[in-house]
Amino acid sequence: MSAALIDGKQIAEQINTENAAEVARLKRDRGLTPGLAVILVGDNPASAAYVASKDKMCARLGMHSEKIALPSATAQAGLLAMIDRLNQQENIHGILVQSPTPKQISEEAVFAAIAPSKDVDGFHPLNVGKVALGDPSGFVPCTPAGVQELLARSGVAVEGAHVVVLGRSRIVGRPVSLILSQKARNANATVTVAHSRSKGLAEICRSADILIAAIGVARFVKPEMVREGAVVIDVGINRVEDPTAPKGYRLVGDVDFDAVKEKAGLLTPVPGGVGPMTIAMLMRNTIRAATMRCGLA
Amino acid sequence: MSAALIDGKQIAEQINTENAAEVARLKRDRGLTPGLAVILVGDNPASAAYVASKDKMCARLGMHSEKIALPSATAQAGLLAMIDRLNQQENIHGILVQSPTPKQISEEAVFAAIAPSKDVDGFHPLNVGKVALGDPSGFVPCTPAGVQELLARSGVAVEGAHVVVLGRSRIVGRPVSLILSQKARNANATVTVAHSRSKGLAEICRSADILIAAIGVARFVKPEMVREGAVVIDVGINRVEDPTAPKGYRLVGDVDFDAVKEKAGLLTPVPGGVGPMTIAMLMRNTIRAATMRCGLA
Repeated sequence: MSAALIDGKQIAEQINTENAAEVARLKRDRGLTPGLAVILVGDNPASAAYVASKDKMCARLGMHSEKIALPSATAQAGLLAMIDRLNQQENIHGILVQSPTPKQISEEAVFAAIAPSKDVDGFHPLNVGKVALGDPSGFVPCTPAGVQELLARSGVAVEGAHVVVLGRSRIVGRPVSLILSQKARNANATVTVAHSRSKGLAEICRSADILIAAIGVARFVKPEMVREGAVVIDVGINRVEDPTAPKGYRLVGDVDFDAVKEKAGLLTPVPGGVGPMTIAMLMRNTIRAATMRCGLA
Repeated sequence: MSAALIDGKQIAEQINTENAAEVARLKRDRGLTPGLAVILVGDNPASAAYVASKDKMCARLGMHSEKIALPSATAQAGLLAMIDRLNQQENIHGILVQSPTPKQISEEAVFAAIAPSKDVDGFHPLNVGKVALGDPSGFVPCTPAGVQELLARSGVAVEGAHVVVLGRSRIVGRPVSLILSQKARNANATVTVAHSRSKGLAEICRSADILIAAIGVARFVKPEMVREGAVVIDVGINRVEDPTAPKGYRLVGDVDFDAVKEKAGLLTPVPGGVGPMTIAMLMRNTIRAATMRCGLA
């Protein structure tokens, strides 16, 4: 048996179409153009590529966007002053600082400086708390929201199922475990958070109806960690050397795809699985921030 | 085999002795007396008893306390104005509004109105977020903090163990699952959050090394849900009718104590298990709020 694949690109495309329609409606009916500011500190090429793709998606959806590039030597105070300016700026509804930041800048300080109402990444502690409490006024981080949407639109029954989340990061593992265990639609799962210190990890993973790999280690999930027919969502994006690839490396997930696809029932590829969902959910969060700002949601 | 019992009363007593010593030290060395304000709205007798015992514990530890009783018809705005006054009041370091509040008052609004730095119950969304992120500047809710302390002082190895939490309330289930899965001391467990909608609940519970029952149903946990020798922590406090008892009712936990004690390795009784820990941790949170306020922690 070979797993069916979840086509994240196609599902993200549906959401982007919905997003574009919503932007058009807001412009036409309310004279409101959602606006996103993305700040890039330094010149990490991967970060620059992410920022460019967010900017491009804003343009495609008819949104306003501002791309702010700061030198890698930028002091934390300078970045916080810039954030504060954007917090005040009327035509900006979402603010995002691309991770990782140079080491003189504390990401915690950055996350806490963004106005919670413009925190479309969902990293401000107040939004983390709201998400933990199931308060819908909070912003759910984009990748976890994308995982939930991917499951829902693939017809996976999450309610009552056993979800095992591998990893407990603030960006993925922790929030995805919180949202899937809420008493809510497309949620209500039994959720286990496992990690590098878990004993009996293979057995725990095998007990999952839905396994979400977000541990940041290339090809970590092997077939013996997957129950026959389980749903496997691969959040990892890891570079591995590959002399035969044009760039000298390849992107692989946290799941040993070729081996696991013989055992899983449903599986996301990397790339083309969770990845495209992240930007789609960022756009959705920004649109929602704009409507909330204007008292429309 | 019969389970050994965890004596929560004795462990809470140790902590209260430590708390009293810390209060004495702060008064002597810093001229600082930690102060707690407890607000009771209405005349629920159980709530009145809880408030009285908190007040009494403050007196015993040498802390300042204010007990504020408001009529049950108090409007939400009136309560929020009172909270705002206490937020400003210099000699009050912790503020607590006794649950439940009358139905004209939104508990969410109350929790969000208390200054996060005085939120010794740990229910403000900002503190919930900090706890979810493992940020030590947040206040951990008292009962979950008590459960963690009870495990630590009973010599239970939590790291790497599989903890199953039955229940996902904001007061117990959710925060205890968050703190025990953090990368931290007395934590680092694999944590599963299960609840009334979980499929295969008995099997999930049986996979626990440590089972924490916080589901609010009298004697819900039966022996077939407990692995031989497991640690079982009973957070429930339920009234059940008992004509032979002096008051006509008895307090029982979420665990079928008499049956489960033949199977568990270590078990908390109700009363005398988790209950006494809650006040001890409230006092500890208030002392910490006072020292943080004065830049000492």
